[in-house]
Formats: sequence, structure tokens, C-alpha cells
Amino acid sequence: MRMRIGVLASGSGTNLQALLDADLGPADIVSVVVNVEGAKALARAEAAGVPARLIRHRDFADRESFDAALVEALRAAGVDLVVLAGFMRILTPVVLDAFPGRIINVHPSLLPAFPGVDAQRQAFEAGVRITGCTVHVVDAGVDTGPILAQAAVPILETDTVVDLQRRVLAVEHQLLPAVVRAIADGRIFPADGRPRLRGPEPDPGAVLACPSLPEPTP
Amino acid sequence: MRMRIGVLASGSGTNLQALLDADLGPADIVSVVVNVEGAKALARAEAAGVPARLIRHRDFADRESFDAALVEALRAAGVDLVVLAGFMRILTPVVLDAFPGRIINVHPSLLPAFPGVDAQRQAFEAGVRITGCTVHVVDAGVDTGPILAQAAVPILETDTVVDLQRRVLAVEHQLLPAVVRAIADGRIFPADGRPRLRGPEPDPGAVLACPSLPEPTP
Repeated sequence: MRMRIGVLASGSGTNLQALLDADLGPADIVSVVVNVEGAKALARAEAAGVPARLIRHRDFADRESFDAALVEALRAAGVDLVVLAGFMRILTPVVLDAFPGRIINVHPSLLPAFPGVDAQRQAFEAGVRITGCTVHVVDAGVDTGPILAQAAVPILETDTVVDLQRRVLAVEHQLLPAVVRAIADGRIFPADGRPRLRGPEPDPGAVLACPSLPEPTP
Repeated sequence: MRMRIGVLASGSGTNLQALLDADLGPADIVSVVVNVEGAKALARAEAAGVPARLIRHRDFADRESFDAALVEALRAAGVDLVVLAGFMRILTPVVLDAFPGRIINVHPSLLPAFPGVDAQRQAFEAGVRITGCTVHVVDAGVDTGPILAQAAVPILETDTVVDLQRRVLAVEHQLLPAVVRAIADGRIFPADGRPRLRGPEPDPGAVLACPSLPEPTP
């Protein structure tokens, strides 16, 4: 019994592309829904031969009716797990209750730090030295649901915000497919609140050997 | 010109011990002040031949008079940089203004996440997969000052809170002396708000090769 994955995207779709390119084990991406006309994610899905639909949120009177259309599309595709891959809309209970504990999101910070928009800039401006990304279950809050997996990303002295955004995104491209596969494999369980996937364990000994740390003076 | 370090401690003093054991480059620990009778930190300082004093906060009518006694002791020792190593008192402007931008603290989380007491338990109970420790400049807030350095620590599936506390502490023992030495070397500047020391850069490729991640099913 293979797991059927639906992906929601709004933008350029690089996280969608990472999912399309990854070995997801016993899971298939069976549906992609995009809410913004011209979003490159739509073309990526079509290029991969995955059924893709444009459902414009602007065509709906309110969030609930837009969400009802999402649910209809996802159910029609027989989706088991919904993955938000750069999907820039807050979901209402119309979607949340249709897939309870079965909607996951990737967020570009180590939650609970820096929820909401522009998380990499928030981290950069807060002066933190380590940020990262988080895959979590979506609940009614903004980036508040149970954390499934995280990976750390350092902020380098030479970084601009754009550098940091690129580096975090590259790690998202690894972490998100790994989590989807782990869910499909039954190694983590989004609904049970006790997930097991995590990022790499830093070597404490490497703290002093960090290549970006200037050498002590002789 | 060697940098003169004063250390304030309240408890068992393992971070003090890490400082005493480390090569701090052009810096010497010249004074240790402990505020709790029987704190093992006092014995550690004495064993290392470092002048140590007990200044009991309970002997003072208010925070300010206690802080004035701290300042007097630190000034008498000619201290350039004050290091809080498990020091469990909030400092008033009496101390902060006497050593502006020259007081640093180590905190057992990746600030700004989980400030305040019992940070490891806060992280554990929040369900995060990565926490860590932070060395920061002390300001009038609780763990809010400019961040100088951070290191990441994963939370493993098998961890108890005690396991996590031990693992974070072991990383503190590396990071804090590294920061003190970097300040003494002039490689980071606590007062300028643009520090440069950081923890190791995780290998994004290791996300999928994490030894604690169960293998995908064949």
C-alpha cells in the first residue's frame, strides 16, 4: 500500500522539485495544487508528469471556500499526506480537519524561534549564529505544530541575508524529502507527537576546529 | 598586556573548571566570586590557586548592595572581563554599568529560544530536535544580550532531560573557554554587537546519514 502525497505550493517550487527528485520510498506524489497563477511549481509538476492544478485563492470569497476547494482536489486525488512546500496561505479548519495530523510544513528556522514570514531575515537581524529549518505538523497556529525534524545551519560572518536564505533552502531540500520518506516508511508518525527524525549530530570537538573561526594567535 | 578574567559562579562550577583547564591564550582567571555557601566552585578555584571569595547575596539587604560588593571585589582584582559561569543571580545596573559590554554569560539553549531557568527542560518539553548553548553579552534583560557564539546539540529519541542537560553542558565546556580566548585574542569583541565566533557547520549531507536515523526499509 503506497502512500499518496499531495503537495501545495505558491512559488518557485524548489522544495517541490526536491520532492520530485528524491527517492520517497513507498510514497508517490499524486497531486500538486498551486494557488498563484504563473507559479513555477506548476510547470515543475507538469514536467514530472504529476497531475497539477491551479486553484487561485483570489477566485474565492473567503478562506473557507478556498480551503474547501483544496480539500475537494486533494480528496479527489486520494491524498494521504499533505505537504506544504512554500505554500503561503494560512489554512483554516476546513483543511486541517479534513487531514487531521496529516499536513506537514517546512519552515526556514529552528522553531519555536522565528515563526512567520521572513524567518531567515528575522534570525539574521537577531544576531544568532545558528539557525536552520524545521519540518512540523501543521495546526491552527502559525508554525506552532509538533516538530518532526530539524537541521541546523550556521550564519557565517560573511553572510548576507540572501546567502543565508540559499543555505537554509539547500538544507530544506534535504530534510523535507527525508521526512516524507520516513513517514511513508512508518519511521515517524506525524499525528502522534513523538517523532524520531532529526538532523545531524554536531561533533562537540568541532567547536574549536570550526574552519570559519580565526586561528588563535601564536 | 594580559586580559584579567573574573568568574562569578553559584553552583558546582563545572564551567569554571573548564575555564581553569583551558588554554585561554593571553588571559588569566584572576578572581572567582561565589554567592552560595558550600558551592563547589569555590573549592575548584582554591584548588587551582585562583583567589576566590564567598559573597553571600543573603547577607545583603537588596540586589544593589550585593552587586556593589561584587563590583568592589572585581575591581579590586583588576578584572577586565566578567564571565558568568552558572551564576544564578540577575545583575542590576550596579554591575552592568561598572563593566559595560564586558560581562558574558553561557546559557543552555539556542537563544532567543528558551531563555530563563531550566532551558534544557523547556526545549525538551517543546519537542524540538535541536537545541544548544549560547554565549552572549549580558544586558539588563534575561538572556537577551548580543549573541557571541552558539553551538547546536541534538535531542535524541532516547534522551531524558538529564541526558540532554549533560550533553548541552559538555558543549558549554568547549564553547565558553573558546569564546573567552577569542575575546582575549581580540578575535571577537563583546561590546561591538558584531561577534564572529560560532559553532561547527553541520554537513547538510549528514542529514540523511544521521546515525540515529533508522535506516529506510529495503
